[in-house]
Amino acid sequence: MRELTNDEALHRLGSVPFGRVVFSQNAMPAIRPVNHVVDGGAVIIRTHLGAALLRSVGVVVAYEADAIDADSRLGWSVIITGYARRVQEAGEVHRYEEMLQPWVDGAMNQLIRIRPRMINGFELVEAREVVVT
Amino acid sequence: MRELTNDEALHRLGSVPFGRVVFSQNAMPAIRPVNHVVDGGAVIIRTHLGAALLRSVGVVVAYEADAIDADSRLGWSVIITGYARRVQEAGEVHRYEEMLQPWVDGAMNQLIRIRPRMINGFELVEAREVVVT
Repeated sequence: MRELTNDEALHRLGSVPFGRVVFSQNAMPAIRPVNHVVDGGAVIIRTHLGAALLRSVGVVVAYEADAIDADSRLGWSVIITGYARRVQEAGEVHRYEEMLQPWVDGAMNQLIRIRPRMINGFELVEAREVVVT
Repeated sequence: MRELTNDEALHRLGSVPFGRVVFSQNAMPAIRPVNHVVDGGAVIIRTHLGAALLRSVGVVVAYEADAIDADSRLGWSVIITGYARRVQEAGEVHRYEEMLQPWVDGAMNQLIRIRPRMINGFELVEAREVVVT
């Protein structure tokens, strides 16, 4: 296992279309899969979670994405932690709505930006492999 | 999108080798990918997280696994929420250590059982598909 640099981690995150947002709901840990884009070093999600996540807006959430192959047991995982805030500027809302097509039916009008305060990424590499970093 | 029954959800969870445990760490949401087995209706994980997760043992955690195809945008996600407790009975420890081989190097001596109090699962189906439940 090797740690990814922040740049590597954000690059990996941007290379996949979805991940999982982690937040508190009624003082309990909650997690929901959503699709995302990475833009300007931040993660943008569009959610139908409504009240559940919006209560968390302005508070700290985590966001995780991974690509781990169950057979080879190789892959990577990236976790960012940061404040979730609604995207409200009209131009940005329009642009992100174009970029983020909802995967499920239903109104998905809330765009949330998670700006990382912490970035943690790791890569699962073969134990015998020599990793040159 | 259709909801899975509890039985369907646990069956899906048991069909994949890894997921993500969600807990609070220093009052912030935290998430780590780990591998798991489903046994007796509970999720068993073996973790190298040490102090990070062990502080959560006896408190509520969430556990999520999914299999979503990025191209077809079809698949499923299951989330259980429940108390995390260490598995300490010697026979169980031995059995689960056989079942759960660590994917990364390092001591992974903590076996944790998460017994679901809530089970939430959904399946992403094609919008035009008629689902007979």
